[in-house]
Order: sequence, then C-alpha cells, then structure tokens
Amino acid sequence: MRRLYHQQLSPFCRKIRLVLAEKKIEIELVEEKPWERRMDFLRMNPARQVPVFRQDDLVLADSNAIFEYIEEVHPEPPLLPKNPIDRAEARRLAAWFDDKFHDEVTKNLLYERVNKKLARTGHPDSDRIKLGMKNIKYHLDYIGWLIEHRRWLAGDHLTIADFAAASHLSCLDYCNDVDWTRNEGLHEWYSKLKSRPAFRSILADLVPGLLPPPHYADLDF
Amino acid sequence: MRRLYHQQLSPFCRKIRLVLAEKKIEIELVEEKPWERRMDFLRMNPARQVPVFRQDDLVLADSNAIFEYIEEVHPEPPLLPKNPIDRAEARRLAAWFDDKFHDEVTKNLLYERVNKKLARTGHPDSDRIKLGMKNIKYHLDYIGWLIEHRRWLAGDHLTIADFAAASHLSCLDYCNDVDWTRNEGLHEWYSKLKSRPAFRSILADLVPGLLPPPHYADLDF
Repeated sequence: MRRLYHQQLSPFCRKIRLVLAEKKIEIELVEEKPWERRMDFLRMNPARQVPVFRQDDLVLADSNAIFEYIEEVHPEPPLLPKNPIDRAEARRLAAWFDDKFHDEVTKNLLYERVNKKLARTGHPDSDRIKLGMKNIKYHLDYIGWLIEHRRWLAGDHLTIADFAAASHLSCLDYCNDVDWTRNEGLHEWYSKLKSRPAFRSILADLVPGLLPPPHYADLDF
Repeated sequence: MRRLYHQQLSPFCRKIRLVLAEKKIEIELVEEKPWERRMDFLRMNPARQVPVFRQDDLVLADSNAIFEYIEEVHPEPPLLPKNPIDRAEARRLAAWFDDKFHDEVTKNLLYERVNKKLARTGHPDSDRIKLGMKNIKYHLDYIGWLIEHRRWLAGDHLTIADFAAASHLSCLDYCNDVDWTRNEGLHEWYSKLKSRPAFRSILADLVPGLLPPPHYADLDF
C-alpha cells in the first residue's frame, strides 16, 4: 500500500502528486499538519516536512529524493530526458522553482497568506506580500521567455521542471496571485498542463475556510 | 577545458570541488563574486549563484544538477549507492544539509559573519548568530547519532551526503563555529573526511582579510 503524507497547498507535495499521477501510480493521500509535530510523523521525517512517501516499510522524505526514486523505479513515462546534459537542464529548472522561486515568491505570498493562517502563527506581513507580488513578475517573464524558445520549460518534452513550476504556480493561483495575462507563453504553457489528467486531483483541492477563485479549476481561464 | 566558477567559502561550491577531486577530474577554479552581477556571469546563470560548471560550450548551473551530471558522466568512484532506496537516503541527507542546515545554520552564521563582509551589505546580526549557534547543536547531534548506526552518513559507503554535510561544516569551521568535541561520532567522521586527498584544496583555501583558526587545516584537530 502506498501513501503520501501531504498538505493540499504545499508545492512540494503537489509536485510528487503530479509525478505519481502522470505515471499512473495509485496512492492514498493522508493529510498531515507538520506544525502539530505528531510523534509518528517526526519518526518518519525528522526534518518535519511534507511530502513523505510510504510504501509498506519503506519511508522516503525530501521531495527531490522521492522524485528521483520514483523516476528510477517507475521510469515510464520519463520525466527526465535521456541525455545527461538535458537532464541537468531539467534539474536546474526544477531547482529554480523549488529554491529561487520558493524563496522569492512562494514564501512571501503563499506562506504569508495561507501557512500562517493554517498554523495560526500570526497575520500576513504586507511588506513581504508586496515583495512577493513584485518578484513573481520576473519569474512569469522567465517562463514566457523559455516558452518562446522551447515547447516545454526544459526542452521538447514535459519534465520535472514543468511540474515543479506548475506546483508553485497552482498553489499561488489558488490564492489568486498569478496574472495569467502577463505573457502569452505563460498562458499557453499552463493551459497545456492544466488539461492533463494528472492535474485533476490538484484542481479538485479544497482547503476548509479558504475558497479558490472561480477560474482556479476552469480549463478555460 | 573545465572551469568551475566559485567562491571559496560557498558550501555548494565546495561540494562540487569535493566531488570532482574524489573522481580525480581536473578543473580550473575561477573566483566569481556573484554580488557584482557581472554580465557574462549572469548570462551563464541567471539565478546569479555559484557554482557554475563550464566545459567548452557546455554551461551547467545549480549544485545538485551539476552533481547528478558528473555522477552520470563520470560514475567512478560512485557517490550515490546502486540501490534506488539507498540512493534516496543519500539524496535525502544531502538535501538535509543543503536545505535545512543551510536555512537554520549556514545562513545565520556564515552568511552573517562572512558574506555580509565580502559583499559589504552590513554588519552581522547578533540575534541571528545566537540562533545559528543554538541550531547547529541539534545538527551536530544528528550527525553523531547517524554515525553511531552507520559508517558514513547514508550507510556503508561515502556518498554525496557526506560531502554536502562536510561542505557546510568546513565553511563554518573556517570561522571557528564548529564544536568538534560535541560528540565522538562527529569527530571521527570528520577526521576520516579531512584526511582524504579530495579535501586538500579546501583546507588550503585562504580568504583575504579573513584567517581561519590554526586547527582548520590540521588533520589532528
């Protein structure tokens, strides 16, 4: 039996959910609130972070380690290219979103607006939100620029880079923080992702007390 | 011709230097000051971060993407185990140090004491230094606990997890911020790493205006 301990609006969890769904691997989703420091959860992952992947006695933590494991054990369809140079580009861009975008945008917008509310650790800091709203523009432009030159973010094929980027953006879109009209490439790229069957579970997410905007689950946004 | 654009006291650069040295891959080190936003450097890596790996026309950024590329193209000696489950454990622990330790310790100690001075962006924040000194204890204990149960951090063999951890700790040791007497396992593990030929270049580092403590390069510390 496979389980993923997760949070609905965690980009790192969404990335693994997309990977599993794309590879048609069934999983039971278990909602975990890491801030409650549940002992059984800490034993699975002393880093106190979701996602945690569990399959019988096997417990894996860290979203990159989980992804690489799934890619090695379930290689079809591949989410990393074959050529080492192209693989490096897909990994560079996945890290761009999981590190840089996360630091500059996700922390300032999603964590201020949502995580603080869920974990009851205070009110959103308006300076950080302003900074996040400024920073996101450069990243949306970077996606637009990449899509002018490539079919998908890292090249001709869908890779983990697209899922990493879409995971952060879909969480922010749930809070209505993404301007999809910013450039054409961005809109075209996200439309293609949004209409994939793998995306369905994410579009159906519903956080109690926090409704997404009407366009969130709409394929014609 | 291979080049690594780097900073002497960047843990992410040191990790790649250790990987290259362990695999006996020769490289020319080029000192880069990312805060100077040199245009040719930004063209190589718009994320404006070191390390950047260059081999003729090939340019790779992001330390994890660079590592995985080197491991795929130069597999000997391996720095990831063969078995996917063991590989996941090595990657989890590498991420532990590159993400969690980096956030909780490296940023609060090294970046406050050294990076602010080098980039001339202000004085160290004493609250952050206090926090970093408190946080490092838990991480040193975690290393001690792992070494009670395993030969190396991720199991029976030296892996990227050991190099990630040692890269952060060696930078902090340059500023005399590591209490090597904290537990026996920690000292034993770092002694083994420090005496490897791959470690030599790092122990010879010398940042202008910033001398390391005498024990820094001493194998009998």
